Amino acid sequence: MRIAVDVMGGDNAPKAIIDGSILALKEYGAELYLVGPEEEILKYLKEEDKRNPNINIVKASEIIRADEAPVNAIKHKKDSSMVIGLKLVKDGQCDGFVSAGSTGAFLAGSLLKVGRIKGVDRPALSPLIPTIRRSCMIIDAGANADSKPKNLQQYSVMGSIYMEKVMGIDKPRIGLLNIGTEESKGNELIKGSFPLINSTGVNFVGNVEARDILSGVCDVCVCDGFAGNVLLKTVEGTAMTLFRLLKEEFTKNGRTKLGAMLLKDGIKNIKKRFDYTEVGGAPFMGIDGIMIKAHGSSDANAIKNAVRQAKIFHDNRCLDIIKNEIDKLGVERTDE
Amino acid sequence: MRIAVDVMGGDNAPKAIIDGSILALKEYGAELYLVGPEEEILKYLKEEDKRNPNINIVKASEIIRADEAPVNAIKHKKDSSMVIGLKLVKDGQCDGFVSAGSTGAFLAGSLLKVGRIKGVDRPALSPLIPTIRRSCMIIDAGANADSKPKNLQQYSVMGSIYMEKVMGIDKPRIGLLNIGTEESKGNELIKGSFPLINSTGVNFVGNVEARDILSGVCDVCVCDGFAGNVLLKTVEGTAMTLFRLLKEEFTKNGRTKLGAMLLKDGIKNIKKRFDYTEVGGAPFMGIDGIMIKAHGSSDANAIKNAVRQAKIFHDNRCLDIIKNEIDKLGVERTDE
Repeated sequence: MRIAVDVMGGDNAPKAIIDGSILALKEYGAELYLVGPEEEILKYLKEEDKRNPNINIVKASEIIRADEAPVNAIKHKKDSSMVIGLKLVKDGQCDGFVSAGSTGAFLAGSLLKVGRIKGVDRPALSPLIPTIRRSCMIIDAGANADSKPKNLQQYSVMGSIYMEKVMGIDKPRIGLLNIGTEESKGNELIKGSFPLINSTGVNFVGNVEARDILSGVCDVCVCDGFAGNVLLKTVEGTAMTLFRLLKEEFTKNGRTKLGAMLLKDGIKNIKKRFDYTEVGGAPFMGIDGIMIKAHGSSDANAIKNAVRQAKIFHDNRCLDIIKNEIDKLGVERTDE
Repeated sequence: MRIAVDVMGGDNAPKAIIDGSILALKEYGAELYLVGPEEEILKYLKEEDKRNPNINIVKASEIIRADEAPVNAIKHKKDSSMVIGLKLVKDGQCDGFVSAGSTGAFLAGSLLKVGRIKGVDRPALSPLIPTIRRSCMIIDAGANADSKPKNLQQYSVMGSIYMEKVMGIDKPRIGLLNIGTEESKGNELIKGSFPLINSTGVNFVGNVEARDILSGVCDVCVCDGFAGNVLLKTVEGTAMTLFRLLKEEFTKNGRTKLGAMLLKDGIKNIKKRFDYTEVGGAPFMGIDGIMIKAHGSSDANAIKNAVRQAKIFHDNRCLDIIKNEIDKLGVERTDE
């Protein structure tokens, strides 16, 4: 597998990105294409890495910052690490692309430079959040603010394939995010999506409520990008607030400080789980290429995992399976 | 003020409901109408309460359970405490109604039996959630699954009046729940709502993100009922999950158990804040009467607070102010 990595994206770029990519290369094997300014990359490569035939440097002089208007940035910064990386996939030189850079630019760039799978109108950003059981994919988490039932049907199929093939979950349980569990509940979008998802053959467990997602009620939470984004950011905000309140209580007096000291490791474990909010990178599903968006605050280990995700995605031929299943949905629709 | 209370609604009915109502009566003064089976109510009233001219018993023989289909229950259980209570408001015998019973029946019943304020198409359930600063009203939290920009405009005005008049907040900050803070962000509903809210004269702070609600970024979070419900239930689910993980860490070994003992009170405080999720009762805004939905798990103190909310609502003539402001919005729209 040939994988392009945006060396300049993310808070810890370029060091953590380069380190993580090389860790993945050594652990899982792959052909790496590090995209960014050559002198920056060379600075962080060891002599043995420079001689490694599986590590390629692809020059890119510009950087897209997180606060730039995404479409504009993609159109004008033609020599950015983001655009050059995307083009490697478009031109077939690489099989996948990992970036911890601007989410907006990543989404816009994937659409503009790589393009959609035939039949998928609305690709979806689909991060995994940690649950009590394991993790749950939120699809869509905000790539599209407005969706149609057909989009949600496609999300259910793509999410199911990903969780099975990449995360190794047998018959992933697909839930439809709703404001009640009865089939009659919800807005027009959800009511329209229910029968469509039910007809796909995925392991559909019906409507699920937001309060049960972290308890592991499903492996894939299908929703429109607006609701998914609200869910994701509410988890983040609630965890942040609770930890802030805990800290206040812990530092109140000598007694609580002692208690906090005894519990330090445990709290750290929980915090770490919720700090990232997301498990590994978020695939951009429905793009005609393997696109993994790593969290902006990714360290080397997170990048290693994102590269690993891309590799499993590739090794299991997920893109072909998704194309095939989307194609089938299309045929079924025409039959009706 | 004459206030009707649904004695049979909620997990702790009838004792906690009756106790809480009488606590409120003694602390804040009001004329109480306790609605439910007479023998049940008499069982929990002290002799002095039975002689109190401000405590009235209104007989109702039926109970609407939480799992009944709301509209059906309201239509068929004509002698339920919920329906009789709502009719007291409709007929002008009472100024407000408090119930900890089925949310669905409360919403359906308020619409069918009491009716909307003229000009308000979609009344909104609007609970308050605790924040780091004080509390934030989520309007709408699920009364309507589909909304229009005009509905959200009305929510902003009604929410602002409530937080100012009932919660005593000077110039409440009104935020529009969105998936980014830039004005260009969001779905069609939100993009259409932004200029409408901006034109009302409320203290509009623009778009707010779900991750910042608990940090107190606004006093009123305006949203459609679907997104609001997802937000509310995600706060609940995340808090529940975090406390479960904390408990696991706390009970791991002797060391952590000692730590947990030292921190017991602090954790309890935080848990209590998040346990209810909601602060006091949730007003059903836009109904032509004072309707307060108390949490199903309300204890006597929560009921006391819900009655208090109803009383402040009444004493500050909020209903008239809301009618007046909604009327103005209507006129302005016709002028355009």
